[in-house]
Amino acid sequence: MSEASEAVVLIGRKPTMNYVLATTMPLSEGKTVVLKARGRAISKAVDVAQVVTRRFVQDAEIQSVSIGTEEGRVGQDGRPRSVSTIEIRIAPKKSSAKKK
Amino acid sequence: MSEASEAVVLIGRKPTMNYVLATTMPLSEGKTVVLKARGRAISKAVDVAQVVTRRFVQDAEIQSVSIGTEEGRVGQDGRPRSVSTIEIRIAPKKSSAKKK
Repeated sequence: MSEASEAVVLIGRKPTMNYVLATTMPLSEGKTVVLKARGRAISKAVDVAQVVTRRFVQDAEIQSVSIGTEEGRVGQDGRPRSVSTIEIRIAPKKSSAKKK
Repeated sequence: MSEASEAVVLIGRKPTMNYVLATTMPLSEGKTVVLKARGRAISKAVDVAQVVTRRFVQDAEIQSVSIGTEEGRVGQDGRPRSVSTIEIRIAPKKSSAKKK
């Protein structure tokens, strides 16, 4: 496993399909993709992972899902706020790995 | 591990703290809790898991996170819709398990 062949897709406010396409491209080149999202974008990250693995790149699979908290973001009232995060790792299936 | 001592908390539209309390109670009795959410409630499920394990029940930990798709829900236009799902399993830490 080469860690260099990993792409990170940050999920934000754009439409889900934008991120689906951004994820499909590196996967089709055999790279692993890590989707990262915080706060309300977490639901969208899950949607992206599901659409990609079920409809677009069927020889890719969800390898791991982890959740966490990011601290130290300061809210409008000046107090530090925590925000939940998610990381979803999608990789080409081992069985379908081909030499090109 | 007894599968019977497992509580399921369905995350919906209520305030996050309602679900935090619903999760804290079975955990403090030594049970495993499975948080389940769909669609936009997914972000809230992650928030609940983070608040519970970081602030309320520090001798509990997130054991697994899995995501999926639920099919066959029919939208307003009569066509079937898929919705993303998440399941977060929170369990008392092994090291802190005590006989009571």
